[in-house]
Amino acid sequence: MIKMNDMEKVVEVIKERDNFVLGAHVGPDGDSLGGLIAMGSFLKQMDKKYCLSASDAKHVIPPQYKFLPGIDTIKESSECFEPEVFISLECPALDRLGVNNKLAEKAEILLNIDHHGDNANYGDVNWVEAKKSSICEMIYDMSKFLPVKLDKDIAQSLYVGILTDTGRFQYSNVRPDTFEAAKELLKFDLDTNAIFRDIYENRSYHSTVLLGEVIAKAVFHKNKGFAYSSITNEDFLLNNIGVGETEHFIDFLRAIKGVEIAAIFKEVSPKETKISLRSTNGYDVSKIAEKFGGGGHAAASGYTSHKPLKDAIDDLVGTVNNVRSS
Amino acid sequence: MIKMNDMEKVVEVIKERDNFVLGAHVGPDGDSLGGLIAMGSFLKQMDKKYCLSASDAKHVIPPQYKFLPGIDTIKESSECFEPEVFISLECPALDRLGVNNKLAEKAEILLNIDHHGDNANYGDVNWVEAKKSSICEMIYDMSKFLPVKLDKDIAQSLYVGILTDTGRFQYSNVRPDTFEAAKELLKFDLDTNAIFRDIYENRSYHSTVLLGEVIAKAVFHKNKGFAYSSITNEDFLLNNIGVGETEHFIDFLRAIKGVEIAAIFKEVSPKETKISLRSTNGYDVSKIAEKFGGGGHAAASGYTSHKPLKDAIDDLVGTVNNVRSS
Repeated sequence: MIKMNDMEKVVEVIKERDNFVLGAHVGPDGDSLGGLIAMGSFLKQMDKKYCLSASDAKHVIPPQYKFLPGIDTIKESSECFEPEVFISLECPALDRLGVNNKLAEKAEILLNIDHHGDNANYGDVNWVEAKKSSICEMIYDMSKFLPVKLDKDIAQSLYVGILTDTGRFQYSNVRPDTFEAAKELLKFDLDTNAIFRDIYENRSYHSTVLLGEVIAKAVFHKNKGFAYSSITNEDFLLNNIGVGETEHFIDFLRAIKGVEIAAIFKEVSPKETKISLRSTNGYDVSKIAEKFGGGGHAAASGYTSHKPLKDAIDDLVGTVNNVRSS
Repeated sequence: MIKMNDMEKVVEVIKERDNFVLGAHVGPDGDSLGGLIAMGSFLKQMDKKYCLSASDAKHVIPPQYKFLPGIDTIKESSECFEPEVFISLECPALDRLGVNNKLAEKAEILLNIDHHGDNANYGDVNWVEAKKSSICEMIYDMSKFLPVKLDKDIAQSLYVGILTDTGRFQYSNVRPDTFEAAKELLKFDLDTNAIFRDIYENRSYHSTVLLGEVIAKAVFHKNKGFAYSSITNEDFLLNNIGVGETEHFIDFLRAIKGVEIAAIFKEVSPKETKISLRSTNGYDVSKIAEKFGGGGHAAASGYTSHKPLKDAIDDLVGTVNNVRSS
């Protein structure tokens, strides 16, 4: 099949073909889950055969998205069939599909829908728009060209994708079109406050207290613009908290005035420490992560150290001291 | 003058009259400051004489709004003249104007622009729209009927009002019109991420650490849906932090799963404790605040106790235990 770009081709394939598997990326977020559910609703309206999958879905759907109507229709990859068309949602590269990768390779046509500028264009049709806030904004645009109707549930799914991928309309990916889509979706009488609470609040008491402890013990090297803190394995066990629940902790360090590099050390075991890095003011932390065999983006990167927590901290502090003094 | 309602009358008065003093409410927020600056720019374009005042302005402008171009043009009430027209911005009642109250009373015409449903309609012209997210959304609407042009600075001021009064587009006051206004304002190439950082981040290291300590020591009475914590006078002094910088701390308690009432006790002196209350799920905390001589809204209230911190805590815990067991 000839490589094709753009939404029209995606619309054409969806209209013409009969059966579809849709896959979101590993560690699915609000945008990929919202997009998955909305696309499923469209295919249902069009009487197509389809299966929604988020890799090893049942174990990985973050609890804050459980409120989305239709979230229960997301299956494990092994429960889906070999499709005519595979639709990859928000995966810059094929390996981000996790185990769904295999179904994608077996499909006759692979549609690649993404808003990441570094997308590898691995599909038969690649609809990649780096200027869009989210795939949910893209899918909202596309809905006008499909024989489908939006309803409150679909509007909510798409809204959640836009909301979360823009960090609540705060990142630089918010554009006039983003608000235009949000406006149209809100007309379905969405309860913005309830959505907000479901996604961003309802934090457990234990994770709130742990958040407090972690930011209270933050170390700030003001002259290096570097703040860090750590979560010990004991913290995780005592509070009965998974690593996923501590993902946003680092935002509080990044938000300190004068911080350009923020790090959180998560002691997974006595010889394994996961390090998350964030930056502000355009500083590129991916270079630091790469030094330690990790990777990521300029503003958000990470790596794993196979050393005890204390040594992992010393390694990074030493490195930051070097790169920031030059 | 006959009492008149609506935007058209406000537009008429602004066009016809020559000199204006504009006042925001005591303890000005992003919406009243953004509205003040935008209105000032409009009057300047129309060659009117005007003075912007936020009561005892120089001392009370929160640091997170200092980045707004034009914020320096806000004067103290005593620096303004006795105007032909006084425009009250976002004040439900006249006493919310603070010392500007006197200038308002001396003016020939008093315009009352507000979006609070409980506004007392104290003006000669009352333009009150409870369905609007903010006065900045109202002023954006009005700009179309004035002989003025929006520019990037004005757009930013109005955007900041909408952003902050909707709690970053999350409260139930967000409506399709809100996003429509945000869309149009964003077309002036606003840097949403920089605005976000200026307002919500850039927290001092000390206030971050104090936030951590306060939420780490939170007490949660799960069966009463009640969480609270406290800030001692020593905390304030040691961290060199004003009460204003701790305003959002309570949000973290309100966000705990299962919490319906959240309280923070702020020990101002050995015999004065300020108590802030927040609620979720529609619980009305103003009733509790009223019991102790305070007041506020259903979702956000407060009062002052003239007792030591420990006794103030005991009083409230006892009261909550009573009202929540009945």
